[in-house]
Amino acid sequence: MLKIGFLGPKGTFSQEALLDYKKGENDFVQCAYNTFAEIIHAVNKDEIDEGIVPIENSLEGAVSATLDTLATDVDLKIKAEIAIEVKQNLLVRKGTDIEKIKFILSHPQPIGQCREYLQNNFNHANIRFIYSTAEAAREVAECDFNMAAIGSVTAANVYGLDIIEEGIQDRKHNFTRFVVVSKTVAEKSKNNKTSIVFSTEDKPGSLYRILDIFSLWDINMTRIESRPAKNKLGKYIFFIDLKGHVEDADIRDALTMVKRKTSFYKFLGSYPAFVIR
Amino acid sequence: MLKIGFLGPKGTFSQEALLDYKKGENDFVQCAYNTFAEIIHAVNKDEIDEGIVPIENSLEGAVSATLDTLATDVDLKIKAEIAIEVKQNLLVRKGTDIEKIKFILSHPQPIGQCREYLQNNFNHANIRFIYSTAEAAREVAECDFNMAAIGSVTAANVYGLDIIEEGIQDRKHNFTRFVVVSKTVAEKSKNNKTSIVFSTEDKPGSLYRILDIFSLWDINMTRIESRPAKNKLGKYIFFIDLKGHVEDADIRDALTMVKRKTSFYKFLGSYPAFVIR
Repeated sequence: MLKIGFLGPKGTFSQEALLDYKKGENDFVQCAYNTFAEIIHAVNKDEIDEGIVPIENSLEGAVSATLDTLATDVDLKIKAEIAIEVKQNLLVRKGTDIEKIKFILSHPQPIGQCREYLQNNFNHANIRFIYSTAEAAREVAECDFNMAAIGSVTAANVYGLDIIEEGIQDRKHNFTRFVVVSKTVAEKSKNNKTSIVFSTEDKPGSLYRILDIFSLWDINMTRIESRPAKNKLGKYIFFIDLKGHVEDADIRDALTMVKRKTSFYKFLGSYPAFVIR
Repeated sequence: MLKIGFLGPKGTFSQEALLDYKKGENDFVQCAYNTFAEIIHAVNKDEIDEGIVPIENSLEGAVSATLDTLATDVDLKIKAEIAIEVKQNLLVRKGTDIEKIKFILSHPQPIGQCREYLQNNFNHANIRFIYSTAEAAREVAECDFNMAAIGSVTAANVYGLDIIEEGIQDRKHNFTRFVVVSKTVAEKSKNNKTSIVFSTEDKPGSLYRILDIFSLWDINMTRIESRPAKNKLGKYIFFIDLKGHVEDADIRDALTMVKRKTSFYKFLGSYPAFVIR
């Protein structure tokens, strides 16, 4: 049976994405982990077959832990992507007085997605950084009526919490894009996406020269994300998503050239592009 | 007297950057704020003349709160940049047993900078997200010997804490770049940098076409950072740093064209480039 890792415990947005990814299928086992890096390393060690990890959110941006682990620690491939709408809610134990809330518990990503709400409503509360939204909900379920968690409706149901405020993220529409990482690659579909990560040579215009390659081959870049190279301020690695599959002649030839013109290069996979319904 | 805002209380890295920026001068007052956004808004409301805020770290990357506030909420200019070396330390009350530490307190940025250290040494501790490293140190100074803060040597001294582990960030060399925001602009110096933020039209190749403008005018781009546009997954705004001053003919003409070719454009300032000593 296929083993798939997700950020646990039960009731996280990662689990929601996993169930969406495997909708209508039941030939898999769900394995809960405590961090995104642990999930990725578990795939790398063959503890599990696939892992589902968030890669970007429409409010808070890139998920650094996922990008950094994929770029430097492992050599896995992205085989699928899933985007889910994320509604953050304020969850409390039944009977909690909103005026008495002293602690807000959640994962740093949702805290970032609700920055304005927290500033306007809980400026004096202590923010506690928990490894997942569901674990935050679980802790609130056992608390002294002075805490609230930020998390999903599922988490509220699983841990028997009341939702006292709905949709508290800073904008109404909020999406998180997840990727499935694995040692096996995806089959080519109708609409594909290709992800790579690289660093350029240390001279002026070197990033431009790489993008020039995509322009020459008429390849559409859908995303560019920079992360620090970590060894020096002002040095970066770049994550780029392209429309197309590595088996397409243009992408294949362009990437051959990119590989030659970069000081570090890693192919992260070609996979079916997800369309938000 | 010039009023300058920084992330308080006493003993933060922001204060260290401020003192570095004003080295040898004493014609200013330091004003402590609780968040980077508050500092920027205080400058905007003329409560203070200048504010110092971090913009990127060599391990953890961009500081989203600073970028998002500068891009969307205000129309201020960057008038200087300062980079300081950041050493994170584990601070405790004298007499705390390292084995008994249950809570680690700090700002989310240093937590991100010490990700590997925390995973290897405090996998089971609760991470508490405090608005500044110095405030975390202040709270630890009053605790029950079961907490540690991550922060500077100055914070340890100010709040009378012991340093039980030095330099716990994930790499030995760790720099944070701060910018000074103000309503006044900097004078042109020998080495200048120009920062802009924009979003491109919604069609393939539109970012490439902007970078092409810089290439045509032979302008060196030193940094590109994308942030979500917040209204839709897959839409971004771009922060770009260029070598040169807006009064240089090339930069002036290139930016005139960039402004015409983008759907949103904001000039963030020309200022002396900081050289790490």
